[in-house]
Amino acid sequence: MKIYDRPGFPNPARIRIVLAEKQLESRVEFIPIDLIGAEHKSPAFLQKNPSGVLPVLELDDGTLISESTAITEYLDALDGAPTLTGRTPREKGMIHMMSKRAELELLDAVSVYFHHATPGLGPDVEIYQNAEWGFRQRDKALKGMHYFDGILRTRPFVAGEVFSMADITVIGGLIFAGIVKLPLPAECDALQAWYARMQERPSVRNRVTMSEPAAASA
Amino acid sequence: MKIYDRPGFPNPARIRIVLAEKQLESRVEFIPIDLIGAEHKSPAFLQKNPSGVLPVLELDDGTLISESTAITEYLDALDGAPTLTGRTPREKGMIHMMSKRAELELLDAVSVYFHHATPGLGPDVEIYQNAEWGFRQRDKALKGMHYFDGILRTRPFVAGEVFSMADITVIGGLIFAGIVKLPLPAECDALQAWYARMQERPSVRNRVTMSEPAAASA
Repeated sequence: MKIYDRPGFPNPARIRIVLAEKQLESRVEFIPIDLIGAEHKSPAFLQKNPSGVLPVLELDDGTLISESTAITEYLDALDGAPTLTGRTPREKGMIHMMSKRAELELLDAVSVYFHHATPGLGPDVEIYQNAEWGFRQRDKALKGMHYFDGILRTRPFVAGEVFSMADITVIGGLIFAGIVKLPLPAECDALQAWYARMQERPSVRNRVTMSEPAAASA
Repeated sequence: MKIYDRPGFPNPARIRIVLAEKQLESRVEFIPIDLIGAEHKSPAFLQKNPSGVLPVLELDDGTLISESTAITEYLDALDGAPTLTGRTPREKGMIHMMSKRAELELLDAVSVYFHHATPGLGPDVEIYQNAEWGFRQRDKALKGMHYFDGILRTRPFVAGEVFSMADITVIGGLIFAGIVKLPLPAECDALQAWYARMQERPSVRNRVTMSEPAAASA
């Protein structure tokens, strides 16, 4: 299978973490997409993902799967032993809820801030910007950090007792926050301690480091 | 289990369709939430769902699950025989991709239009509005209708050969479009034909009808 992505960017990092957790990296051919050059908005790429975002998974039969949650569902089910998306109905519900909440309240909010209230990926990509909306979303992301800090005072992982897709989505949000220089509030010490623990996982460590150079170039 | 919702609204309708498809309605106690009175933004409700949106599922042990995809995952897995969220890795990936795309490109876009560029749920709820962003999202939703029309020219259901969560999410989007009086473009005849077929399903028929009175009051 192939993955179209760009190392160091937040949503690609989510899938790289999934692949490492599932030990699937060797089965994937990675194809880099030039985000600064707006390759993800080109007609050829929009054929692969009409939403124009990374990453995209292409199966050997040509099937195209985009959206990080969908790619994670596919990869996690490949071996018939899902470890990241839940084994029981309650786990599935909790993991999907917390992962979606991490998108809504953190990752997607940072993304809108980046694309609308900063130079984002540059003038070739950011053709329309709504700065007021972008700054609102920055404030939402900061509130989201406090929310997840509160959650992580009550349990070891974002969706409960085990590492899951929900942790990976929050990690994606914090990678993006690092890129846009939105620091974790000092008082969010449970979130900070959890993030330090996450970076002890081999699947996560390199992603967070890799994201730093992207910050400079983005 | 309990579900906090409001009949006739789009995301509640998604879960009502899931419950009907899975024949689980008799196991649920429905608790109505007053959206016009901003009950979903009250401290008591925000305890249940910090994102302040409907529906919310409460299990008998007190576990709270919000977000329609997460609730659908829970309900679909309850009997160990998922029919709406996919049985194989490829099905899971396709269904999650298309359902997320239906949110991004249609349902959530209509929602932002409703809350930001129309009176929405009224002045007690719509404290901040960004009309420019709202109108952009209306245009995005219209483009989304054309996208799904194109998809439904190539296959009988949104994610492939079987009815799934992805169909339900598009139905939610079209219910919301009906509420905000955003008609399906005449040229989207494949989408129109699919929607007519969907309304032949007992699980769907009443939801679409029920949404009409909400249009007048919302």
